[in-house]
Amino acid sequence: MTYVRNAWYVAAWAQDLEPDRPMAISILNEPIVLWSAEDRLVAFEDRCLHRLAPLSLGRCEGARLRCMYHGLLFDADGAVVQIPGQDMIPPQARLRSYPVELRHSWVWIWMGDPARADPALIPPAVGFDNPDYILGRGFLDYAAEARLINDNLLDFSHLSYVHAESFGAGPEFADERPRLTPLERGVRFERWVVGTHGPGRRKSDALIDSWQTYDFLLPGILLMWSGSFVAGTAERCGFAQPDYAEAIGAVTFTSQAVTPTGDRTARYFFSWGPHRDHGDEAIRDMLMTLADRAFAEDKVMIEAQQRVIDRTPSPRIMPTVHDRGVTLFNRLVERLARAEAGEAEAA
Amino acid sequence: MTYVRNAWYVAAWAQDLEPDRPMAISILNEPIVLWSAEDRLVAFEDRCLHRLAPLSLGRCEGARLRCMYHGLLFDADGAVVQIPGQDMIPPQARLRSYPVELRHSWVWIWMGDPARADPALIPPAVGFDNPDYILGRGFLDYAAEARLINDNLLDFSHLSYVHAESFGAGPEFADERPRLTPLERGVRFERWVVGTHGPGRRKSDALIDSWQTYDFLLPGILLMWSGSFVAGTAERCGFAQPDYAEAIGAVTFTSQAVTPTGDRTARYFFSWGPHRDHGDEAIRDMLMTLADRAFAEDKVMIEAQQRVIDRTPSPRIMPTVHDRGVTLFNRLVERLARAEAGEAEAA
Amino acid sequence: MTYVRNAWYVAAWAQDLEPDRPMAISILNEPIVLWSAEDRLVAFEDRCLHRLAPLSLGRCEGARLRCMYHGLLFDADGAVVQIPGQDMIPPQARLRSYPVELRHSWVWIWMGDPARADPALIPPAVGFDNPDYILGRGFLDYAAEARLINDNLLDFSHLSYVHAESFGAGPEFADERPRLTPLERGVRFERWVVGTHGPGRRKSDALIDSWQTYDFLLPGILLMWSGSFVAGTAERCGFAQPDYAEAIGAVTFTSQAVTPTGDRTARYFFSWGPHRDHGDEAIRDMLMTLADRAFAEDKVMIEAQQRVIDRTPSPRIMPTVHDRGVTLFNRLVERLARAEAGEAEAA
Repeated sequence: MTYVRNAWYVAAWAQDLEPDRPMAISILNEPIVLWSAEDRLVAFEDRCLHRLAPLSLGRCEGARLRCMYHGLLFDADGAVVQIPGQDMIPPQARLRSYPVELRHSWVWIWMGDPARADPALIPPAVGFDNPDYILGRGFLDYAAEARLINDNLLDFSHLSYVHAESFGAGPEFADERPRLTPLERGVRFERWVVGTHGPGRRKSDALIDSWQTYDFLLPGILLMWSGSFVAGTAERCGFAQPDYAEAIGAVTFTSQAVTPTGDRTARYFFSWGPHRDHGDEAIRDMLMTLADRAFAEDKVMIEAQQRVIDRTPSPRIMPTVHDRGVTLFNRLVERLARAEAGEAEAA
Repeated sequence: MTYVRNAWYVAAWAQDLEPDRPMAISILNEPIVLWSAEDRLVAFEDRCLHRLAPLSLGRCEGARLRCMYHGLLFDADGAVVQIPGQDMIPPQARLRSYPVELRHSWVWIWMGDPARADPALIPPAVGFDNPDYILGRGFLDYAAEARLINDNLLDFSHLSYVHAESFGAGPEFADERPRLTPLERGVRFERWVVGTHGPGRRKSDALIDSWQTYDFLLPGILLMWSGSFVAGTAERCGFAQPDYAEAIGAVTFTSQAVTPTGDRTARYFFSWGPHRDHGDEAIRDMLMTLADRAFAEDKVMIEAQQRVIDRTPSPRIMPTVHDRGVTLFNRLVERLARAEAGEAEAA
Repeated sequence: MTYVRNAWYVAAWAQDLEPDRPMAISILNEPIVLWSAEDRLVAFEDRCLHRLAPLSLGRCEGARLRCMYHGLLFDADGAVVQIPGQDMIPPQARLRSYPVELRHSWVWIWMGDPARADPALIPPAVGFDNPDYILGRGFLDYAAEARLINDNLLDFSHLSYVHAESFGAGPEFADERPRLTPLERGVRFERWVVGTHGPGRRKSDALIDSWQTYDFLLPGILLMWSGSFVAGTAERCGFAQPDYAEAIGAVTFTSQAVTPTGDRTARYFFSWGPHRDHGDEAIRDMLMTLADRAFAEDKVMIEAQQRVIDRTPSPRIMPTVHDRGVTLFNRLVERLARAEAGEAEAA
């Protein structure tokens, strides 16, 4: 399992984190307690310094967190401020804490060197605070390593097969290749599917050009815009953004985040919904119903793929033309992870 | 786990394999997809060449099988015939396929060298296509290695204890020893229990001689015929087959097959029923009810035995006189497995 | 996992062992069958000499135990006395048996050198046969190693936090330190909590002094007496036993036993109830309801602690002043275990 540590990982939907209620999460196999109190957001290693009881079973006391095994009290910087029955507090006793940010309705945790935790590296997702979009949200837990989910999102040709019944993309979708552009921290995919009647379940009478563009960014964040336009739009626009006012039906945005929780487990967060000027709540609800169905299809396939890989002595793959995005992204991850390992060794 | 690879393993009841519906099975810890289409029966390794997704989640298209992750299409010989979006197909790309035969209502898969896959080595079981017998069938999944189930079937003295309540064999059954004859690929067991009132739950008023003969054949196939006859028959016939016309009650046949699926898992297939001239559907149903009960008794004992073995640092056994069949068969397996390993090394 | 072998471990509540019904238990990861017949109590390794089937699936026949796989019969000393179908019985064939004693309503098994199994080393618990106490009982299975439960019982400061809602001890309980006295095979804890209104859920109007004394003894046995008295009693008595006649409310006794069953599993046995002169059945029932709630709180915390420890590469603890009892007891265990290992090596 190779992952970049110097990156912001999605830890939770902001809406799922209640004030004064510690929340247990896991990123890169490290147990973390996430809590917010008195407008401060904190992420600690989820183990008390005393006897390693999980602090996620603890109690918020103002801006402090108490371990509910033997009562040690920690301030929001991780320092021990009280040990019941004991006057002397070891001054160097301190919990490891992680840089944490709330942005675009996601709680982001930096898993690498805290000195490099630059919030400017948080991908520009669209959150529920953005008035332009009407979004729904959810998450799914996978019994598979995050990389396999990344690979899935880096090759949309699977839409024609895994989602033949749900998204109804049709085999012609997998026959076309998107334009790929390497980015500093990811890959951009741009695609027009030209002159079809649209995906199977939402066919239009007129011929349409379907537009879709997404960035897939470190550590595993997908940000995608898409819409359908009258035939000829693709030829006219090229890969410039089409004029939403000319859209047939909704223009939608989806953000998806893949967080490795353990060696063979991951949490997959997602939102989806229309632009407010080109869709409404009913369309959002329809999209979320569709997402629940389609993302369950991915989960069945990817977890089964993981089980096959685990039973294969020396697993080898045979890349196809559609793996270019997968390869670009995974090489980026390996290059950065190698650089991190080198720095760690030099230090 | 020592097993012979050059043997036909039972993969499924033919009735459980639907046309155009790929079926996931596992033999010797290898994931296999079994499918039939256009009157052809095929067994492939259950992993796509591309990214190791299981083909058992795939779709039959005529006599071809499509991976439903990214759409690679395979012909019935395992060759890739289509890669969506890609013109060039690597000519050497080919799935491993296994020799497979449908016979006696069982699907048999050859796990060894394909060049040696001789259908004449398929044990002469009685299938549902045999008009002489009225059979029922089933299978059970074990959390135990196949060898322990073989051992069970190679020593019927357990009938007096494991099945004291179901088959009701009585302690006298375990006091007698069957005649054993080594076969080229197994062991023959022949037995008369003389002058009893029959097993506990099906007692007769008159004294009877109970006859039972079975072959236990590689890789783990039991074929057994049995019946009850008037006292004196044993003395008159010796080990020649008695005249079924003189049977008291039913003359029955059962075939049982033990397939190692993983290191600590096995699937146990079975059929049972009377000869059509010496029994009827009601007797078959009674026998199947009895089999469900008795085979569950074996499963409880053998899975518990497996758990004890797994917790024993250096497990040792103390053979008894009844282990002669177990020993004969397991030595045969070891001898053949050693020969296979030697050939593999020489090659 | 370091445990002392030369000690009596609690195997079961006597009431849970039915005559002629073999019972499967596990101590220090060794499978053991416990059975009583014809007034004899026996503990064997739970694996038949023949093929390692568990004898706990066996059948008592008078003072003998029969393996119900192939019928081997063992006498109460573990000798084979019958092998079906076989005349010769290997004279040296014998099951390992464990010294076993029934005392204070518990079945105790000695896991060490049988020659040292001195019943005088059985801790002086109070059983249901003691007319002075009205007791209830139970047990809980833990997915955690026994040592973590011992540690919990060796530091009652957790009452203020883990049991804040159930026992309602209040933070002042954890602020006080008990008097500790090292014993030859354990540690004594004595404590007065002076001048409070008692624990939260059972507050009294008058000020009271709460008295509590317990011994924690090898291998993991807690024996505790406690009661509440008028304020001033503590000062008058010191650590001498107060006069029960002056108790406010019940004087109670509890015995608790922690038995390591596997590497990460344990069984926790407990009784609790009032002295007959200072309480009744209603109080016992109230205490058992409270115990069920409070011991479930411990289980949640300790199993979570175990999971954190298992995910921590090099787990380190930071002892506090309350860990003195934990440290004393664990050092005693380590010293004795080391001595046992040394003797084993010398032998």
